[in-house]
Amino acid sequence: MNPLTSTNRLFAPLLTDDLVAERFSTSRTIADFNAFEAALLDAQAETGHISETNAAACKEAVKQFTPDIDAIADCLISDGLPVPEYVRQLKAVIGAPHASAFHRDVTSQDIIDSSFAMACRDINHELTRRLEAIIASLDLLSERFGANPLTGRTRMQAALPMTVAQRIAPWRASMAQALSDLAGLRPQIEVLQLGGPVGLYHEVPQSNDHAQSMAKSLDLSIGEGQWHTQRSNVAKYANWLSQVTGGLGKVGLDIGLMAQQGINAVTLADGGSSSAMPHKRNPVLAEVLVALANHNAGQLGLVHQALVHEQERSGMAWTLEWMTVPGMMSSTARALSLGQKLVSGIKDIGDPHQ
Amino acid sequence: MNPLTSTNRLFAPLLTDDLVAERFSTSRTIADFNAFEAALLDAQAETGHISETNAAACKEAVKQFTPDIDAIADCLISDGLPVPEYVRQLKAVIGAPHASAFHRDVTSQDIIDSSFAMACRDINHELTRRLEAIIASLDLLSERFGANPLTGRTRMQAALPMTVAQRIAPWRASMAQALSDLAGLRPQIEVLQLGGPVGLYHEVPQSNDHAQSMAKSLDLSIGEGQWHTQRSNVAKYANWLSQVTGGLGKVGLDIGLMAQQGINAVTLADGGSSSAMPHKRNPVLAEVLVALANHNAGQLGLVHQALVHEQERSGMAWTLEWMTVPGMMSSTARALSLGQKLVSGIKDIGDPHQ
Amino acid sequence: MNPLTSTNRLFAPLLTDDLVAERFSTSRTIADFNAFEAALLDAQAETGHISETNAAACKEAVKQFTPDIDAIADCLISDGLPVPEYVRQLKAVIGAPHASAFHRDVTSQDIIDSSFAMACRDINHELTRRLEAIIASLDLLSERFGANPLTGRTRMQAALPMTVAQRIAPWRASMAQALSDLAGLRPQIEVLQLGGPVGLYHEVPQSNDHAQSMAKSLDLSIGEGQWHTQRSNVAKYANWLSQVTGGLGKVGLDIGLMAQQGINAVTLADGGSSSAMPHKRNPVLAEVLVALANHNAGQLGLVHQALVHEQERSGMAWTLEWMTVPGMMSSTARALSLGQKLVSGIKDIGDPHQ
Amino acid sequence: MNPLTSTNRLFAPLLTDDLVAERFSTSRTIADFNAFEAALLDAQAETGHISETNAAACKEAVKQFTPDIDAIADCLISDGLPVPEYVRQLKAVIGAPHASAFHRDVTSQDIIDSSFAMACRDINHELTRRLEAIIASLDLLSERFGANPLTGRTRMQAALPMTVAQRIAPWRASMAQALSDLAGLRPQIEVLQLGGPVGLYHEVPQSNDHAQSMAKSLDLSIGEGQWHTQRSNVAKYANWLSQVTGGLGKVGLDIGLMAQQGINAVTLADGGSSSAMPHKRNPVLAEVLVALANHNAGQLGLVHQALVHEQERSGMAWTLEWMTVPGMMSSTARALSLGQKLVSGIKDIGDPHQ
Repeated sequence: MNPLTSTNRLFAPLLTDDLVAERFSTSRTIADFNAFEAALLDAQAETGHISETNAAACKEAVKQFTPDIDAIADCLISDGLPVPEYVRQLKAVIGAPHASAFHRDVTSQDIIDSSFAMACRDINHELTRRLEAIIASLDLLSERFGANPLTGRTRMQAALPMTVAQRIAPWRASMAQALSDLAGLRPQIEVLQLGGPVGLYHEVPQSNDHAQSMAKSLDLSIGEGQWHTQRSNVAKYANWLSQVTGGLGKVGLDIGLMAQQGINAVTLADGGSSSAMPHKRNPVLAEVLVALANHNAGQLGLVHQALVHEQERSGMAWTLEWMTVPGMMSSTARALSLGQKLVSGIKDIGDPHQ
Repeated sequence: MNPLTSTNRLFAPLLTDDLVAERFSTSRTIADFNAFEAALLDAQAETGHISETNAAACKEAVKQFTPDIDAIADCLISDGLPVPEYVRQLKAVIGAPHASAFHRDVTSQDIIDSSFAMACRDINHELTRRLEAIIASLDLLSERFGANPLTGRTRMQAALPMTVAQRIAPWRASMAQALSDLAGLRPQIEVLQLGGPVGLYHEVPQSNDHAQSMAKSLDLSIGEGQWHTQRSNVAKYANWLSQVTGGLGKVGLDIGLMAQQGINAVTLADGGSSSAMPHKRNPVLAEVLVALANHNAGQLGLVHQALVHEQERSGMAWTLEWMTVPGMMSSTARALSLGQKLVSGIKDIGDPHQ
Repeated sequence: MNPLTSTNRLFAPLLTDDLVAERFSTSRTIADFNAFEAALLDAQAETGHISETNAAACKEAVKQFTPDIDAIADCLISDGLPVPEYVRQLKAVIGAPHASAFHRDVTSQDIIDSSFAMACRDINHELTRRLEAIIASLDLLSERFGANPLTGRTRMQAALPMTVAQRIAPWRASMAQALSDLAGLRPQIEVLQLGGPVGLYHEVPQSNDHAQSMAKSLDLSIGEGQWHTQRSNVAKYANWLSQVTGGLGKVGLDIGLMAQQGINAVTLADGGSSSAMPHKRNPVLAEVLVALANHNAGQLGLVHQALVHEQERSGMAWTLEWMTVPGMMSSTARALSLGQKLVSGIKDIGDPHQ
Repeated sequence: MNPLTSTNRLFAPLLTDDLVAERFSTSRTIADFNAFEAALLDAQAETGHISETNAAACKEAVKQFTPDIDAIADCLISDGLPVPEYVRQLKAVIGAPHASAFHRDVTSQDIIDSSFAMACRDINHELTRRLEAIIASLDLLSERFGANPLTGRTRMQAALPMTVAQRIAPWRASMAQALSDLAGLRPQIEVLQLGGPVGLYHEVPQSNDHAQSMAKSLDLSIGEGQWHTQRSNVAKYANWLSQVTGGLGKVGLDIGLMAQQGINAVTLADGGSSSAMPHKRNPVLAEVLVALANHNAGQLGLVHQALVHEQERSGMAWTLEWMTVPGMMSSTARALSLGQKLVSGIKDIGDPHQ
């Protein structure tokens, strides 16, 4: 919703993560929707909840489906979400009598939340990789420069002599903690949503088999029933995202402070140039890490506002989640890649020596 | 930075304002940059700060300039902002000896902040129009249905009988207040930035004439000197943006509550459809107004975090502004158009009657 | 609600403003309540809305009233606010037949919001004084040390030589702006609330005379009718409070950065001691200013969440205001006094010099 | 820092948790400080890091120590925290030559963070109990009224018939999830801090034995080294606190909506009274739950801002934690007790029925 940092090419490329953007693109989301419906058809056909014939006809349609995206976009203002028109279009393609077996007993939230979970699945895979990469870079940095002296500073004041390795250790610890935390969180957020109109899909016969089958086919886990209104998993995941940017924000702030003339405790590969002062080398990446951390911290507060999710589905709270969580994922992914670039580009670090 | 609500066409069209998006597009921002530089050249030539010959050569280049946007995007990660590469490209086009007169004594923040002010100028014009439109719609609504009875409710409980006009009055009051507040705010936010590298442009001879000339040509006002690090005008404007969405959020929440079966105090033109329950008419616009209000409230907190803007320019704080303020403008503009649509689409309002 | 920073004497005295705390004390609030009721009785008696006899009996009771605070506290959990029990106690004291004239046609929100406005009135008086004091201190600082050289820094990097006066100028500008803004805001926030149960007090005969009389007697202004649910004045005031702490947070961060060994651009009167490192002089006040700024910025986001104030009175939104705004007032007041102490305690400032 | 909701007895008793307030009282914190120092003396004496004689003299002094709280409060403004003066006073009591063994190799943050962990330990014990109690109450409610019909509502609209049990299930699920999450979190937050001046206590000989001994004696766990600047455990805990209030906020909002006349789906034991409308029964507790949820969500954003914790100790970030986390604990504890009262006071629930 922020055009400057999303689509304006004079600003967005600094702050936006291409991989996350691609994963939340229109075409990928449509592919997720299709995958959800195909898995549902299979699962419901397996248990006889819908007929094999109907399922086959529906699946064929889904496989070849190219939605009219403009028509979906046009319906958003009345429907509030893309699923009703997506389903209408697909049902029209399928036609009677098979169409009645399509999207049976499920609701828009099932497909949207599940597609969100699928995006998380892929993005978490990449976040894991990036965390491992930055940890490796920090280890390398510590190996190369760890023995250099560095003045420990508390409350911004010189405190006691220490080494570069000792400054790096908490940087690494927060990334290692995040890596370990993510492993535990993934099954809680990469989780199938299957609740039906008011969260009672579990009353559909053999619903558990449906969930098992779908989760397997979509590579998602199964939670304890649906999570239509109980969004603690989303909140926990958002907390994790902000924890990562917070940790990287600390790295950025530390490096920014070390780069000050007068302190001179780090030499960066490439500082930014200035339109007015060509002699300056600005620690741009360090600063952006702090800004991304601040940003995610603020969004996290909003994700938690969305926990107050009334009744069986809140358009207010759910829409607020959309406005916050994917952006946090983008910021976290971007912070990791920028952090990696910053750390691996350090030419020297430690109090002025030699 | 949120791909789902910015560019994914299955979600973004609900929440994004096209006019604001267009105003913050790459090409419009480049046009703003060019306008700033042209106005600066004129102003500096008028006082003899640069030669007429140089100014003419520079202006000719600016007029015909088509930047290499990809090259600018590539430099963002090192420069942190688009101006240095934009200036490099233009200077290369201008060539020696004239290029030395280009971008003289100014800094990236002058051009970026001024172009932000120009975007505000145009968007505020439209926001004014939309506020007037929604006030007119509320007046019309009150004219048509104002005499209908409505149970006044406090703390969600039926309190005393009142009329629809009395419920509408505070809705209108918040919009009227916003309209009046905006008029007072515009000169504070649509303001030229002209500070130079560390905010000392006022020491340039005849700098005041430069500012006068530029402000006139760019249709901006002049503040009390530069506002590089003193961002209370940005904070105040963000506060206003969130005040508007807050007021519209109240309208949305009230209407959502009135639309509940059992209360039945409003009939909407078009409620959204449901993929599972075709009989439902969801008050989608009402809910989106609440979500936009929640969202802007959270961003406002971040704009204020960015007030702690260290030294003569903070990459951290300034970048955080970019991540928040244009998105708030989009949300406010969108809330006004959705609010207008919601209000003007009310078919009936008041306690069940006839 | 935060015991550590409110009442624990090992932490609270650093962060809490005694004057604001006293102004929001139980006894002062009771005095405000009594003042409101007395003014209401006068106003309603003047127009004959209640009889002189009844008014006199009621006023006599109010004048001598010592409420049973424990009983009020006990009723909070069922009533959600102190007024119903306060009124019950006073009516019991007044007794029949006069009691029926007491608290006539008004509601809890009238008395609570008006008493909040009265506290604002007194606190704003003091905030004005403190702003003037810190501006004077900044002027003095600039007079004494303004000519000292100082390296201008942008993006945390040395940029260009400037002077101490040029660093101080934006500090002063934000305080001067705040002072000027407050003058304009005071009539918007120090405003009588007189709305009645569902905001329709204006339908009471001669209600305008009542408001005029009460406003005069309570030294409050009159807005355009009641502001039960239209809280843009509260939001604007909260924005102002956070603008002040944001401006002081910048001062704090700048001074904290200047105090770093290696930069050595400021000598503070008294830095804090360390339990482990007696040689350190921590720039405690500078850091606290940043923390207070961060804190207020977050609370402001919540005040704006409370703009979504449903129907004729929202217990949810209003309670959220109580949890945020007085704390912001305390933080702003405290930041001003700590900022004053910090600034006036500067022994030297500028790049290292003889 | 918010006098209205912390100490004003006309408001605070509604929103403040007495148990949390008491646990963060001055005397309890002093007791925590003393416990920390005693445990440190034992641990360091056990390994011979300090002499038995010195340790015994110090412990005797600690045991009988009554600090001069006023003197500590007076030092806050210069020291920024209570520990330096606390240590000075104790060292003065101990006297030479033993005093040199006191507070050996540790820093203020060790004692303050550890005392925070001790408070968490006790408060988490109580939060566990309250979570169990509210789960039991929800189970009882479901037992008694679960079979009652209730209209499932999505996007505030009547969707499909369901039962009261089905509405209650997600309420219970969020509490059960919180209970289970807390068990996993306790060892991460109830954790000894032992880092020394710049986080290098692990270089003290036999430091591991010291930590083991202290953790055992203080009933805390041991993390992976110190957590002076790596505050993900605090952030995670704050996330959990807000998750609980978010879950209870949903319960509150649902009940508030059910209590509307026209919906009439719940009968509460005691709704609040109104000063103007004695016939009203306001769902005060339901509303307060929403306000507490909103409040904690906002504070969480600030706790995450404090993750950007520069160098070896940030007075800014750490102070911000103090201003937020204990208040969140109070709000969570209070929400649990109010939620319990609300749920257990439900007299009937379900769509209107005989």
